[in-house]
Amino acid sequence: MEGVDYHADERSKAEFDVEAMKIVWAGSRHVLEVSDRIARLVASDPVFRKDNRAILSRKELFKNTLKKAAHAWKRIIELRLSEEEASKLRNSVDEPAYTDLHWGMFVPAIKGQGTEEQQQKWLPLAYRMQIIGCYAQTELGHGSNVQGLETTATFDPQTDEFVIHSPTLTSSKWWPGGLGKVSTHAVVYARLITDGEDHGIHGFIVQLRSLDDHSPLPGITVGDIGMKFGSGAYNTMDNGVLRFDQVRIPRNQMLMRVSQVTREGKYVQSNVPRQLIYGTMVYVRQTIVADASTALSRAVCIATRYSCVRRQFGSQNGLETQVIDYKTQQSRLFPLLASAYAFRFVGEWLKWLYTDVTQRLQANDFSTLPEAHACTAGLKSITTTATADGIEECRKLCGGHGYLHCSGLPELFAVYIPACTYEGDNIVLLLQVARFLVKTVSQLPSGKKPVGTTAYMGRAEHLLQCRCDVQRAEDWLKPNVILEAFEARATRMSVACAKNLSKFSNPEDGFAELSADLVEAAVAHCQLIVVSKFIEKLQQDIPGKGVKRQLEILCGVYTLHLIHKHLGDFLSTGCITPKQGSLANEQLRSLYAQVRPNAITLVDAFNYTDHYLGSILGCYDGNVYPKLYDEAWKDPLNDTVVPDGYHEYIRPLLKQQLRTARL
Amino acid sequence: MEGVDYHADERSKAEFDVEAMKIVWAGSRHVLEVSDRIARLVASDPVFRKDNRAILSRKELFKNTLKKAAHAWKRIIELRLSEEEASKLRNSVDEPAYTDLHWGMFVPAIKGQGTEEQQQKWLPLAYRMQIIGCYAQTELGHGSNVQGLETTATFDPQTDEFVIHSPTLTSSKWWPGGLGKVSTHAVVYARLITDGEDHGIHGFIVQLRSLDDHSPLPGITVGDIGMKFGSGAYNTMDNGVLRFDQVRIPRNQMLMRVSQVTREGKYVQSNVPRQLIYGTMVYVRQTIVADASTALSRAVCIATRYSCVRRQFGSQNGLETQVIDYKTQQSRLFPLLASAYAFRFVGEWLKWLYTDVTQRLQANDFSTLPEAHACTAGLKSITTTATADGIEECRKLCGGHGYLHCSGLPELFAVYIPACTYEGDNIVLLLQVARFLVKTVSQLPSGKKPVGTTAYMGRAEHLLQCRCDVQRAEDWLKPNVILEAFEARATRMSVACAKNLSKFSNPEDGFAELSADLVEAAVAHCQLIVVSKFIEKLQQDIPGKGVKRQLEILCGVYTLHLIHKHLGDFLSTGCITPKQGSLANEQLRSLYAQVRPNAITLVDAFNYTDHYLGSILGCYDGNVYPKLYDEAWKDPLNDTVVPDGYHEYIRPLLKQQLRTARL
Ligand SMILES: Cc1cc2nc3c(=O)[nH]c(=O)nc-3n(C[C@H](O)[C@H](O)[C@H](O)COP(=O)(O)OP(=O)(O)OC[C@H]3O[C@@H](n4cnc5c(N)ncnc54)[C@H](O)[C@@H]3O)c2cc1C
Ligand SMILES: Cc1cc2nc3c(=O)[nH]c(=O)nc-3n(C[C@H](O)[C@H](O)[C@H](O)COP(=O)(O)OP(=O)(O)OC[C@H]3O[C@@H](n4cnc5c(N)ncnc54)[C@H](O)[C@@H]3O)c2cc1C
Ligand SMILES: [Ca+2]
Repeated sequence: MEGVDYHADERSKAEFDVEAMKIVWAGSRHVLEVSDRIARLVASDPVFRKDNRAILSRKELFKNTLKKAAHAWKRIIELRLSEEEASKLRNSVDEPAYTDLHWGMFVPAIKGQGTEEQQQKWLPLAYRMQIIGCYAQTELGHGSNVQGLETTATFDPQTDEFVIHSPTLTSSKWWPGGLGKVSTHAVVYARLITDGEDHGIHGFIVQLRSLDDHSPLPGITVGDIGMKFGSGAYNTMDNGVLRFDQVRIPRNQMLMRVSQVTREGKYVQSNVPRQLIYGTMVYVRQTIVADASTALSRAVCIATRYSCVRRQFGSQNGLETQVIDYKTQQSRLFPLLASAYAFRFVGEWLKWLYTDVTQRLQANDFSTLPEAHACTAGLKSITTTATADGIEECRKLCGGHGYLHCSGLPELFAVYIPACTYEGDNIVLLLQVARFLVKTVSQLPSGKKPVGTTAYMGRAEHLLQCRCDVQRAEDWLKPNVILEAFEARATRMSVACAKNLSKFSNPEDGFAELSADLVEAAVAHCQLIVVSKFIEKLQQDIPGKGVKRQLEILCGVYTLHLIHKHLGDFLSTGCITPKQGSLANEQLRSLYAQVRPNAITLVDAFNYTDHYLGSILGCYDGNVYPKLYDEAWKDPLNDTVVPDGYHEYIRPLLKQQLRTARL
Repeated sequence: MEGVDYHADERSKAEFDVEAMKIVWAGSRHVLEVSDRIARLVASDPVFRKDNRAILSRKELFKNTLKKAAHAWKRIIELRLSEEEASKLRNSVDEPAYTDLHWGMFVPAIKGQGTEEQQQKWLPLAYRMQIIGCYAQTELGHGSNVQGLETTATFDPQTDEFVIHSPTLTSSKWWPGGLGKVSTHAVVYARLITDGEDHGIHGFIVQLRSLDDHSPLPGITVGDIGMKFGSGAYNTMDNGVLRFDQVRIPRNQMLMRVSQVTREGKYVQSNVPRQLIYGTMVYVRQTIVADASTALSRAVCIATRYSCVRRQFGSQNGLETQVIDYKTQQSRLFPLLASAYAFRFVGEWLKWLYTDVTQRLQANDFSTLPEAHACTAGLKSITTTATADGIEECRKLCGGHGYLHCSGLPELFAVYIPACTYEGDNIVLLLQVARFLVKTVSQLPSGKKPVGTTAYMGRAEHLLQCRCDVQRAEDWLKPNVILEAFEARATRMSVACAKNLSKFSNPEDGFAELSADLVEAAVAHCQLIVVSKFIEKLQQDIPGKGVKRQLEILCGVYTLHLIHKHLGDFLSTGCITPKQGSLANEQLRSLYAQVRPNAITLVDAFNYTDHYLGSILGCYDGNVYPKLYDEAWKDPLNDTVVPDGYHEYIRPLLKQQLRTARL
């Protein structure tokens, strides 16, 4: 039945123009065109095959990743791809590799923290991949608290060198991707010591391996840290361990944009403001939010398509009911579909924020930085947490078959979840947001105007006493009503925290004691940001038949499911009444019914190839069962009918060659 | 530093007798003694080593499992272990294997559904493992809806045989554990057809493989369904696919305890009541609840011990703060610790319920069965969901290192999560509970007295209008206050659902439309059961210094964290006021402080060996970092310093043998 579209019926139900929605999702017609073209290129290239990942041994798996990375590079060159196209190609290959860190962390670190001179020396080498770099910050004993790192970089004025050293076991670098087996260089973060004085953590470019034969340089012990979560998944990456035994590097390999060590060993600050590093953080976290929407949308795409194929119980015209028709299935799945879109739009906005921050930095305007920093930290946290949970929920939505590796969901989950931990542990980040919120609240009486995403707090007086007007379920569709409810909730939670904190004589004790409440206030604030950016998006002109209408429905689902989920917040702060809460739920149910006929087309709009999705349950044509069946036989266990081990371990049992005793 | 206990300080803080708590956790001194002895036996036997699971190929992994299963059987015989000891030994081996299904499903199916005669024929063979059996119910296209299975068993009166057949691709048996490569026999569920008439689903004993050479019998196609979630994990199991091409079995291999086919092909019901099968279900689900407390307690043990080792930020006597001292860490971890204990006790109670149900069945008393069935279905659902989520939360609580396979948490998660799906999808089960609750509510006016765990609904009138008395945080420690709040919430949610349902002209439409709300009402009811069983446990005499006190604290944590988590329920039903909700939270915080010094000893009380835990982060002595470091070097990727693939895929890049173009 090649070529039959088992979802054709479903697709014909759509009430909007899927091609126009694809453009909205991609961000522009141009981006859609590039992504689409590159994704097909990758999908059709046998070297980029990925369906065998689960059955490869660690060594084979890793070697295969090296092969793909080299092949990707070769294609990039042969096809003279632009930077945009090259980066899309790496994404489409869809396999964690050392190149992620080389391009995503090593290069940006040099760009952000290197002097002009250093950039001129190192970036061309990196751009041409004549050197391969990684980002070596975390140590065995130190992660979230970067200031606690133990690696030392001691200046030796005699030789004009830094001596990089790992003084303890816990100071071993641990986790850096690309470090274990590939990188020739690393940006190493270490405690700078000049003349016995500790100046805190700074970055240094350190060569790790010989460019001739790849062997580690003297004084360097380096290796892979071993298997991580899942099969395939992130095990394609050589996260590494690294120890330095008095390794010497020239002085000019300290990244000196912000502070310098002179020939004489004097530590001096440059006139470049320290806040610059926030710019890089905003950039990196913005990409993480974008990745969240991608990962979640993949999972949702799989679960939605399979929920249309899967039938269980009931009966319509002789067939059982498609499980997507069950309200419980909808109430679990559609909020995730809406979240994928919500995260997409807030990610798009973060891109704008990054540009805005960068321009302001260039104009020496640091006023919005703390707010932008808190906002990106918080959005990184809530979007990655929701995505990790959402992928697993999608897997459960697929019943037993979701547990098969070939459903694609196990590997998607295993690959995704570290996003909750790296670039800032999600709880640690929320505590930073909370700190910023409490500070913002405390400055309100002084008349200091909150900026950016905290601007609403300027209306705290109103928000602390306003009442929600909702009287009928449909009232919950009004953007202003929604916005005010979320603003009121966030304000009241932050203000309540601030009030409770003021009861402590030592504010730090209070912060520690109330930190769980503070985290909840931070979540409320961050959810408001996502909600408000979704609503703002809908105020724009959005072309395409029915497209805007669908997004309005999804926006309703996103916001009302949050109200339902966090009803305790809304009720306990008196933002809404129990009756209004139940109206919200009623409205939510009716929105699910409106999503239902469009569900499959809303996930088609992500425009994922079957190669990229990597899921039999999510395949575009919906021909799930024959594909599952064929896939099973490929497992090496099926190479022989009688399994290896039968003669040693099964037959003796059956033949009672072990005599039974009391059993 | 062999033999040093890095947790000694922590352990010295305990305010209770850990040995007495071990007995409480185990259930009795006898069980503790047996578990302890057997667990040590397994831990010290090199054949049962499991730390290499992640790096074995599927075939090696599977062969290794066969080896362990045979070795376990050999030890059981050599040591003349009792049934209790044998089952503990299989548990301690801690690796999914075909034996789980043989003992856990195949044998019970024959016991429960076979006639006396059938039991006499088949059970001795199974007990001696002269045959190995599995449980073949689920099909590629049919899982939750057993009545939708397609496999047919057609009676042929000419030969006095059933013809077992797979008429479609979707009728292929799919998922049964032990089927793929090992089982010689299966209990196969199929649609019984006599003389053209379909009698629905029945069980049949079918031989699959030759007892001589293990090759599949004629007409049988059988194999493994391929890789599942994770590495190691459940991939040690040969979940299988099975197709029948007109396979003939003698008539007496239909399991005929409840209904029979006579020699003439007449379908007759025996006088054994159909409800009997509920007994087996109660039994199986009771073991699942017990397993939930085991899995969750393992994860909690790992996260607790590591949270005492891990230090980040702050500073006490020069060292950073142990992360377990952060309130956010406590507010995530301690509710899970409390849940592990809560599930343990409700599991214990379910064991009693099973005995009770069995005795009643023997006395032909079916009055409590529907309630017992709903109760076990619901408890299976909420405990497995909470455990799956809890394991992943524990992993996140360990920061980056939790993502390493050697933390034990990835594999624990991967192995555990199918419990949310098998033996009844958790949502489907909650819908069954909801159906029962709505029925119970609807029968209240007629004066029908609700029994067992729904007895509280008999006081619906009071519970619908009572008010919570809490005025100070400490009031939340009173068992009656807690119980009434949970009873009121559950009653009000069920009654509200029933009221909303009555607005629909067709009750089934109403049930479908409101199913998401119904699921929430079911959860409220099931949580009440766990709460009430914990409280009942505390009304018993519990010996040992400080033991009861600790359990009271944990009970408080369990109940108050639920109130916090489901605050929306409690507020919207008017069971408590916002002020009372915030007092509950305050009390919860103070309970965390009381758990803190006892945390590590509360997890020591689980009495897990390091072998069983299988986690470097959770090792008993807390010597985490050197063990992590040593473990890394064991990865095959570290066999060589320069990785396989360097010459083909890294060197050509570095050497620019691929010429750069526009980049
Ligand atoms: C797949 C992966 C890839 C990585 N790649 C790199 C890389 O390329 N380069 C690199 O340098 N690093 C890398 N890392 C390391 C990563 O950045 C750290 O794991 C991350 O910063 C978290 O730190 P941690 O592991 O020390 O967690 P910890 O900080 O030890 O967290 C443990 C627990 O303590 C809690 N906690 C910590 N501090 C506080 C606090 N102040 N208040 C309350 N709770 C607290 C956390 O919430 C968490 O529950 C990677 C990690 C992973 C998993
Ligand atoms: C590891 C593992 C081991 C197993 N071992 C065995 C074994 O030994 N023998 C055996 O026979 N089987 C076995 N199974 C199969 C298992 O019993 C089924 O997977 C399980 O019954 C769930 O059915 P399903 O997969 O068809 O899910 P589905 O029913 O297809 O569920 C898919 C989705 O539909 C939803 N849904 C389904 N019906 C409804 C409804 N009425 N209302 C609302 N929502 C609904 C579910 O909630 C879920 O979200 C195993 C499965 C696994 C994963
Ligand atoms: Ca208003």
